[in-house]
Amino acid sequence: MELLDKLNWRYAAKAMNGKKVAEDKIERILEAARLAPTSSGLQPFEIIVVKNQKIKEQIRPVAWNQSVITDCSHLLVFAAWDTYTAERINYMFDLTNEIRGFKNEGWENYRQMLLGTYPQKSEEENFNHATKQAYIAFSQSIIAAAYEGVDATPIEGFEPGAVDKILGLREKGLRSAVLLPIGYRNESADWLVNLKKVRKPMKDLVTVIE
Amino acid sequence: MELLDKLNWRYAAKAMNGKKVAEDKIERILEAARLAPTSSGLQPFEIIVVKNQKIKEQIRPVAWNQSVITDCSHLLVFAAWDTYTAERINYMFDLTNEIRGFKNEGWENYRQMLLGTYPQKSEEENFNHATKQAYIAFSQSIIAAAYEGVDATPIEGFEPGAVDKILGLREKGLRSAVLLPIGYRNESADWLVNLKKVRKPMKDLVTVIE
Repeated sequence: MELLDKLNWRYAAKAMNGKKVAEDKIERILEAARLAPTSSGLQPFEIIVVKNQKIKEQIRPVAWNQSVITDCSHLLVFAAWDTYTAERINYMFDLTNEIRGFKNEGWENYRQMLLGTYPQKSEEENFNHATKQAYIAFSQSIIAAAYEGVDATPIEGFEPGAVDKILGLREKGLRSAVLLPIGYRNESADWLVNLKKVRKPMKDLVTVIE
Repeated sequence: MELLDKLNWRYAAKAMNGKKVAEDKIERILEAARLAPTSSGLQPFEIIVVKNQKIKEQIRPVAWNQSVITDCSHLLVFAAWDTYTAERINYMFDLTNEIRGFKNEGWENYRQMLLGTYPQKSEEENFNHATKQAYIAFSQSIIAAAYEGVDATPIEGFEPGAVDKILGLREKGLRSAVLLPIGYRNESADWLVNLKKVRKPMKDLVTVIE
């Protein structure tokens, strides 16, 4: 399967060469994230695409000084909703009604159920839940990058609070969840590029209940 | 891009027809999960593949009685590590050394850093972190299913504690994180199959910092 070839091709580039990725490639990588399935279809996250070199330079020291932060082409910051609010839930239900062109009682009951639960939960619980949805999209973007033949380095090693400040995320009701620099590998500077991919054997990953 | 076609084709089937999915398709869907990138490469999750109909019938009532639980072909349960232990961390570092055929000082220092941090964190914090990694694999399986032309329904609506009991997960140091029934849609019984896919417009999802 071609998908498996792409997954075997990709790796977390540890050095990039600064070359720019064409905007149409970035658009398709973002479109893959946009199409990601999420819990109740709420898409509880946003993506900040940092092209500005000065902002990348501000982020690098709060991201373990990883060179790919500044040597990538586009730095994608997946930022999850800080919490679920009635306004955010209603936005998606209203959008659904608008796109599908009708109101449905079952769907409206479901809206009320969500309005009666999410906003009452703690911010931390809601942010954790929203973050998991962001990871589904993040994963789809990683695969899309592989299809575009560009490198993408998943990065959890950063100080979320510091990145939030640099990008003004808290004011927008967002918190940074995970980073994805997109660019082109610098083969001569990357210690990982020629090492074998390591994964658990299937027997240690999967149990089948016949 | 073909990937975007697949993402547009897929949807969360709300009814399945009980038809079995060929084992080679399931193998490739699991292989996509196995190849998923994870934090520090730890792959902190396992996948339980439930083919047994009686077990599916036990799970259905604790999963909002959703019919796809019993009418799917294979029910994938993504179960995250309940916590990070020294043993689990060492397993992956030892496996890495074995596969790559050498020991590396930087890598061994990194092992010590992880051994000095993860096991000291709370179980809840570690489980949350492991769950996010499971979601990356979960997302890759969803895409792989689309490439195989089979349906896959992401399900968060279930009682994790009850599923853990049915599958004996806690004894194995695992906790159920998310479900993915794999099967074939039952078009005549599925209210969702003919409705338009709804996603936020790009302008509400993405902010570019030039």
